[in-house]
Order: sequence, then C-alpha cells, then structure tokens
Amino acid sequence: MEIRTYIERHKDRFRDEWFSLLRIPSVSSQSEHKADMVKCAERWKELLLASGATRAEVMPTAGNPVVYAERIVSASAPTVLVYGHYDVMPPEPLELWKSNPFEPEIRDGRVYARGADDDKGQAMIQVKGFETALQTGILNCNLKFILEGEEEIGSISLGDFCAANKELLAADVILVSDTSMVSEETPSLTTGLRGLSYWEVEVTGPNRDLHSGHFGGAVANPINVLCKLIADITDADGRITIPGFYDDVEELSDTEKAMLAQVPFSETKYKQAIDVDELFGEKGYSTLERNSCRPSFDVCGIWGGYTGEGAKTVLPSKAYAKLSCRLVPNQQPDKITQLMIDHLVSVAPRYVKIKVVHKHDGDAYVCPIDLPAYKAAEKGFTIAFGKQPLAVRRGGSIPIIPAFEKILGMKSVLMGFGLERNAIHSPNESFGLDMFYTGIEAVAEFYNHYRP
Amino acid sequence: MEIRTYIERHKDRFRDEWFSLLRIPSVSSQSEHKADMVKCAERWKELLLASGATRAEVMPTAGNPVVYAERIVSASAPTVLVYGHYDVMPPEPLELWKSNPFEPEIRDGRVYARGADDDKGQAMIQVKGFETALQTGILNCNLKFILEGEEEIGSISLGDFCAANKELLAADVILVSDTSMVSEETPSLTTGLRGLSYWEVEVTGPNRDLHSGHFGGAVANPINVLCKLIADITDADGRITIPGFYDDVEELSDTEKAMLAQVPFSETKYKQAIDVDELFGEKGYSTLERNSCRPSFDVCGIWGGYTGEGAKTVLPSKAYAKLSCRLVPNQQPDKITQLMIDHLVSVAPRYVKIKVVHKHDGDAYVCPIDLPAYKAAEKGFTIAFGKQPLAVRRGGSIPIIPAFEKILGMKSVLMGFGLERNAIHSPNESFGLDMFYTGIEAVAEFYNHYRP
Repeated sequence: MEIRTYIERHKDRFRDEWFSLLRIPSVSSQSEHKADMVKCAERWKELLLASGATRAEVMPTAGNPVVYAERIVSASAPTVLVYGHYDVMPPEPLELWKSNPFEPEIRDGRVYARGADDDKGQAMIQVKGFETALQTGILNCNLKFILEGEEEIGSISLGDFCAANKELLAADVILVSDTSMVSEETPSLTTGLRGLSYWEVEVTGPNRDLHSGHFGGAVANPINVLCKLIADITDADGRITIPGFYDDVEELSDTEKAMLAQVPFSETKYKQAIDVDELFGEKGYSTLERNSCRPSFDVCGIWGGYTGEGAKTVLPSKAYAKLSCRLVPNQQPDKITQLMIDHLVSVAPRYVKIKVVHKHDGDAYVCPIDLPAYKAAEKGFTIAFGKQPLAVRRGGSIPIIPAFEKILGMKSVLMGFGLERNAIHSPNESFGLDMFYTGIEAVAEFYNHYRP
Repeated sequence: MEIRTYIERHKDRFRDEWFSLLRIPSVSSQSEHKADMVKCAERWKELLLASGATRAEVMPTAGNPVVYAERIVSASAPTVLVYGHYDVMPPEPLELWKSNPFEPEIRDGRVYARGADDDKGQAMIQVKGFETALQTGILNCNLKFILEGEEEIGSISLGDFCAANKELLAADVILVSDTSMVSEETPSLTTGLRGLSYWEVEVTGPNRDLHSGHFGGAVANPINVLCKLIADITDADGRITIPGFYDDVEELSDTEKAMLAQVPFSETKYKQAIDVDELFGEKGYSTLERNSCRPSFDVCGIWGGYTGEGAKTVLPSKAYAKLSCRLVPNQQPDKITQLMIDHLVSVAPRYVKIKVVHKHDGDAYVCPIDLPAYKAAEKGFTIAFGKQPLAVRRGGSIPIIPAFEKILGMKSVLMGFGLERNAIHSPNESFGLDMFYTGIEAVAEFYNHYRP
C-alpha cells in the first residue's frame, strides 16, 4: 500500500491516539503530577506495542520513568533510536487558555492542548511514521524508542539511564522530532541547537518585611538591589557583561552567515506576530543570528514583596529571580555557571545576602549535513512537503541531544515539525492537523530512504 | 477615683474589648473583606457608646464607612477630635505567622494579631483613655471621634467625607495614636511625618509568553527592561536620579539635626534587630535622618514570568512592580507623581510598552511643639512613663494628617505608643499589654492637663 493511502485510512485513529496522550497532565516540574507521569508512560507503552513494537517497557529512573520500546528486524540491519519526551511544560497562566489545556479541542483545523506540539504531537508523528513504514512494507532497519519524562526539567535522570543502558540503546543514529521549521512555506531541518544554563537567585535584606515608612531610605531594599544586579548583567548594546562570558563563543563563519541570510525572514511580520514596535538584541548581529547563533540572557521569572491587589507599603525581606542564558557551540555550561555565580556573589553589595542556585543546563549541539540519516531526512521532507528543506541552526536547547553524543557516541538528526505559531510553552499551544499527517509521511519516507 | 485605680479595675474588660476588634479581618486592600469592614465599624460604634459617647454612628462614604461618635459637654468648652482607623494591612505571607493573625494570642505579655498595634490597639488606647478620664471626673472638654476604614489604602474617601462634614467635625485640635516612640526607654512624640506616593508599573514586551530558546536574544524581555528602569532610579550614592526630584526638599536646619542627634541610637543594635551586616542609604546623611527626614525610593513588590516550582524557560509578555517614594515636608506628591510618570515614560525603550498607574499619595506633616495640645500630651507622657518625651520626626506617612490641616484647618498631635518591635505591616504584629495600659493612662492624663 502507498504511504499516503495508509495514512488517509488510519487518520482518525492516529488523531484519537494522540488525543489520549494530551488528556494526561504530565507536567514534570510540578510534584502534584507525579502519578500522571506514570500514567502517561504506561499509555505510551500501550501505543508503542499497538504500533508495531515487539517489546515495550516502562523502566524506572531516579526520577520519572523512561518508556523503552523496540522492533528488531535483523542483527545486521542498521538501527535507528527514536527519542522523544512525554512530559510537558506547566500550563500556567491558566486564565489565558481559551480551552482546557488537557482536553484537546480542534478549532480551524488546529489542535489546542498543552503538549499538542511539544512533544506529544511530534513524538506521535515519529511513532505513527514508524507504523506506516512497517505496514507499507518499506522498513529496512531496526527501531528503538526512548521516551523520557523529564525533558522540560533538564533531562536530569536520562544521562544516568543512558550510561547504565548503553547496550540496550546501541544504534547508528538518533532521530528526534522536537524542534520547529522556519515556516509552513519553508520546511527546514535543524542542524544546531543552543545550550542553556538556568539559575535561581535569592537576595535577602532585613530578616522580615519592614514598614517602608519607618525603614525606607535607611535599609537596602532587596528588590531594588536585585534589579540593579540584573540590570548590570547586560549593557546598552545588549551584550552580557560578565567577565569571560564570550571567551569560548564560536563566531559564525562567513559561509554560515550567508546560509542564514538565505532564510526567508520578514522583520515586519516577525514584529507583528508578537506585537512589538521594535526588536532589541546584541549590537552587530541580525535577528536570526541573535536568536539562534548568539548567547542570550533572560530573566524567566521575578518575584518579591507584595504582589496582591491594592497597595502595601513594605520594604520586603526577600526578592527572587529565575535567570537563564542560552549558550552556543563551544560554550561550556559548567564554566558559564561558575562565571555567573562568581560574578553575582562578587558584585552583590554587603548590605544584602545572596544565594545563587544552579537549576539545570545543557550543551549546545551541531549536526553535520553529510550524515546518511540527515540525507534521508532531507529526502523525507522533500517528498512530504514538495520542496527541499533548508539546514538551519535554531535557538532552543535540547540538552539531552549533546548528552547523547557524549554518552552514547551518536549524532542526532532533528526532524522537527513545529511552527512558531504553535506557541509551545505558552498558553493555547497548538498543532495543525495537516502538519501532523504530513509529518507522519515525512518520517515514513525517511525509512524508505535510510541506507547507511 | 484615681486614674491608675480605674484602669487596674477595668483592665480585663479593656483587653477583651480590644480583642473583639482584632478578631475581625478588616483588610481594606482586599475586596473579599468588604463585609468585615462594616462588621468592624459596627463593633466600634457599640464600644464607643459603651465607653461614654452620647452619640455614635456608622456613616457611609464612597468607600468603607466612617465611625463617628461624640460626647458634647458644653458649647463653650474646647473640643478634641480623636482620629484612628479600623482597617488593617493584609496579613500575607500567612506562613510566617506563629499564630492566626485574626485570633489574638498572648505570649510573654504581648498580644499577637494583625492590628494589635496598627491601629486597633492604639485607637483603643484613645477610647479607653477617654472613658477613664470621663469616669474619674477629669474630662473638661468636648470629645469627637472619627474612625476610618481606608487608612492603609490612602484614606481615599476620608477627604471628601471631611469636606462634606466640616460642621460635624469642627474642633480645636486632632489627637491621633497611630505612630511609634523611639523606644520603651525613650518615650517620644512625633512632630513630623513623611509624605508618600505609590505607583504600579506594567511593562509589556511581546503579546504572549515566548519560548526563551526561540526568541531569547532577539526580543526584549520585559523583566530585564523593568529591572533596568528600576535600577536607574537610584544611583550608587543612594540618591534618586529623577530630574527635579529634590527641588522642593526642605533641608534639615542645624537645630533639627542637633535634636535628632540626641535621640539614643545604636547602629549595631539597629542592624542586629533586622539582621543586616551593613546599612545603605543616601550618602551624607545619618540613619535617623535617612529614615525620617529624607525622601526614599522602595520597590514594594515585583512580579513577572514563571514564579512557580522548578524551572520554566520563558521570555514573558509582562512584568510588574509596585513602586513608592516617601516624601518630606515641602515636596508635593502630585508633582512627584508627574515627575515619576514623565521619567519612566520618557526613558522606557521603544521595544516595550509601559503603563504607570498612580495608586495613592499623601503630604508630609509638621506639628509645632508650642501647641497647647502638644504640651498636654507631653505632660500625659511624662506622668505615665516617668520621663519627658522627646520631640522627633518619623519616617512613616499618615496622609490624612496633612489633609486634615488642609480641609479642616486643624493641627494634629501625634500621641503614638508603637514600638519598632511591634512589627506593624509584618507577620507577627504585636503590642505589649503593659504599654496598652500605660497608653490609656497617658491619654487620661492628657485630658487632665488640656487647657487651651
């Protein structure tokens, strides 16, 4: 049977299976969802077996379990290891969702739910692409699947799991659908990822909240101090001022700059989509360079003092912030964390106490475009989308991708089907139904063309 | 009967009446407590009538009601108007309270509850001081009481109420117990108050929360921007940098500086009490000058982005802060608000949108020490505490005090019995039982010596 025919005949079931995953609130960063993680892993196990895996297991780790599955055709055939994750970001702020984040709703051909894209939708594309290849008789390689439940909290247990199961996970290449394309009109494959370091800062002033009338002016306010510390981390040119921060940054080659310049990009549309009048970033770089090939510094959250209704005149005891840097190839997260902590501790004034806690991190990654699996992915995209995909570096981080390379010694090919409009990590995350089926076709065609 | 004897005989009832007020959560800034405001006002009305008022009413305003009460002895006698407030600050953060903030608990001779001091405890001292003077036959003047329910949210309705009820409130002087003393060993009367302006700032970046990997570095983060805006409001010398901010500040005279220097003050103890290693404030001024006679800038609250458990990598859409300045005599809150708004709007970069909302304000205040009522208060304190009180300016604001002067044309005498350790506006607010009874004696002695 033709690939497209198979997909067309089974499309309703594919969608229903995907929805059954979206209904499980597998939020890894919130401990109240501990049981949902297991429930979600068990559901994946069922689906993998039903899709053609000959073995599937929910395997324990120090944290949330890993789902492992396989279909071994022959010991001499090449092996593809498919990676995905079943955990999702917190849905908050809930009041901004138009429908329940854990009850998928179709509006205008799009599926709205937390995880619709990241990564339940994309991981399902991989599983259903495998089923399609298997059922249409074009599968020539062994398949292994590994789905983790901690990607959104830094894949904290997966490294150890991989190190302990090297034999089980042995393969020729890793296939991942957890990234996005340039646009619907410009399909692309991701050939680079940024790294990440993430910290939480706590600034303590007085030992209790003080009356701002009785103490204001005489005692340092920890929010005022935290704002100054954060403000000083970047300069007016958008550069990070921490000494040594840029030391290891790999500058883009002229060739890479030229490739990036080929990506269709309208600054006007980009600004309109997010409703800002002007963009801001590091001086001397284009927007596409800034959000994919240059490091960045973002405050992901800040809180302190009175944040309720009305006005409370208080000089608070504490102020907090969650800070993160995206890193680029050659920057070492450990080294950046040390630089950040040393910097903050050394510049914090003596009238406050500061605590910086390292939360998680990940290396940057580069995929060579002459890899056989990369070429098969390119073919798959070309057939499914009707045009050849561009090779571009992206700004996000999937810390486990460079970790796979370190631990398992394998490169990953990033066959991502996401789009900016899918609003992953945001309220009203969505994924187009058409893209879901096109993605399945691209994955099936990958297997049709994978000849290492 | 002697004043002290009367207080001793009725002390348990005085305490129980006070506790009945503390049990009502009259938090003016939280709309869910609307009904509690009315309940609290009604309870005050009952207590005022029981204490000797011949008329008491709960009078409506545009906001929370005002409790009015009076005892008119003679048309030719002088009249004292006692002012207090029955609303309290929010109790949050609740987890830091050792006992329920709205169920008074006595520990080591101290009463713990929100409002134990500010202002239910102190207003009760006034009411019970009046009862004591009346019952011991030493009351020679007319009495009027006005208790409002919006002091902690800027007395927003009281100005209009006073303007509409000038006749009703006509008096010779206003008596207020809502301030604190230097210490238990150094009783003092407050002769100056700082003014206040309070604003809420909203900084908007993109129209939704963005993935910090896909957008970080290319789109301005509103938290980063808000931190820079706040950081730039003060310089390294602790001075406020807004153009024109200090133009109208009345510098302390050498005489005032010398008086302030007489206040017993241990910087070591001050730092120990709030557990900070160093103090910070405007260069060139002492701690006591900084917290009473110099303006200040405090961020009372800040929030934005992800503030929950764990790590969420987000470039948020919005960031917020509650900002306040304490002002000194001669600085006009309206003018300062205009300077703040103009400044923030003019320096905010074009890549964000900024909204500054003025929340409330109040003028600074000075009380002359040759006022007959000031002299009677000084006598009352001298008898009750066994030593003459110092005359000092304090750093807090009671916006309605300067407003009374403007609208009703009367000076206020500030007979405050608070102490720093009472932790008003903070968790575990408390008030000493001994001080409660000593305060009642001081107020009764005021009436014994008030001869205008």
